[in-house]
Amino acid sequence: MYLICLDLEGVLTPEIWEAVAIAFGIDKLKLTTRDIPDYDVLMKQRLKILRNNNITLKDIQEIIADIDLLPGALDFLEWLRSNTQVIIATGSFIEFIQPLAKKLNYPLIFCHNLEIDKTGMIINYSLRLKDMKKKTVRALKKLKYNVIAVGDSYNDIRMLKEADFGILFRPPANVQKEFPQFPVVTEYSELKNHISNHIKLKSL
Amino acid sequence: MYLICLDLEGVLTPEIWEAVAIAFGIDKLKLTTRDIPDYDVLMKQRLKILRNNNITLKDIQEIIADIDLLPGALDFLEWLRSNTQVIIATGSFIEFIQPLAKKLNYPLIFCHNLEIDKTGMIINYSLRLKDMKKKTVRALKKLKYNVIAVGDSYNDIRMLKEADFGILFRPPANVQKEFPQFPVVTEYSELKNHISNHIKLKSL
Repeated sequence: MYLICLDLEGVLTPEIWEAVAIAFGIDKLKLTTRDIPDYDVLMKQRLKILRNNNITLKDIQEIIADIDLLPGALDFLEWLRSNTQVIIATGSFIEFIQPLAKKLNYPLIFCHNLEIDKTGMIINYSLRLKDMKKKTVRALKKLKYNVIAVGDSYNDIRMLKEADFGILFRPPANVQKEFPQFPVVTEYSELKNHISNHIKLKSL
Repeated sequence: MYLICLDLEGVLTPEIWEAVAIAFGIDKLKLTTRDIPDYDVLMKQRLKILRNNNITLKDIQEIIADIDLLPGALDFLEWLRSNTQVIIATGSFIEFIQPLAKKLNYPLIFCHNLEIDKTGMIINYSLRLKDMKKKTVRALKKLKYNVIAVGDSYNDIRMLKEADFGILFRPPANVQKEFPQFPVVTEYSELKNHISNHIKLKSL
């Protein structure tokens, strides 16, 4: 039996921090692990910028509620869920992604969470589990699933490697070049074909 | 972070084999593990009855497509999915439950599968994993989830025991009596309250 693990940002939705950065006009919030490889340093910088600009969780949630899914993402996900089982594994936080989960008709989402103070400021972030995406795939394999994983960037690579079959969706050029073992697809129709061919439509 | 594991039959839908038995007027298909405790003996008997009566998978799927969800089940599940993460763990088979999955708006479902021959007859069943419900809860706990499990009968008890918090929903009297450690609820509104109180609505 098959189970598909999908990254969220870049695969089904735009990058959340980028949208937040644009909405508040703060360029430094656009930085990602591509610019600051140490995630903890990056997140602490993001939270400091929010504090310095007096931006609360609620302010950010209002921005996120306005983010549209990537064009075609919902159709793709609905197709996938009606044909097999799907888990979304994202490095983002439950407090951020609730409005996007609603737009996606509430698939199962594995993520992390934030610490909020009484004034609504984000004071810290809490990873439910380190290396969560990879560990999720490993746990699913132990539960006797064949796992297909789909991601777009560096933080998905360990998940893609752990999966029985890994696919890069619209990766940046350097990721594509560095990990030539993964097929690269840029359209949902291609992604459907890759997954259908792999599952051989047996359980569809 | 919390994750809720729900049994399917008896919790969200009627018992599938019972509906099939009634539709075909074959009383022996009504027997469950309450009557024949050895699941393999029970399933082999069921499959033999189907063969002897020339009943194909497609015939059964048509019956199952007509099964209504339990009244209130969909509202309860939608509430739950919009407030936390949910996995349905069922001893049933993907070939049976697809129409019910659709009525439930495609939650994640962990289940088993059937072997079908070229004439559409069910020739065998295949358990993805023995003791799957319990092992699912254990895997989720290792992924750092607090797990609340909800079931109605004997085949859920090991899942309920493994979970951080187990709840019996409309159990038969003997199950309720034998496992007094689990709270018993009979209405979705009570189930909502139990879950809300346990999660303390922190992540809601």
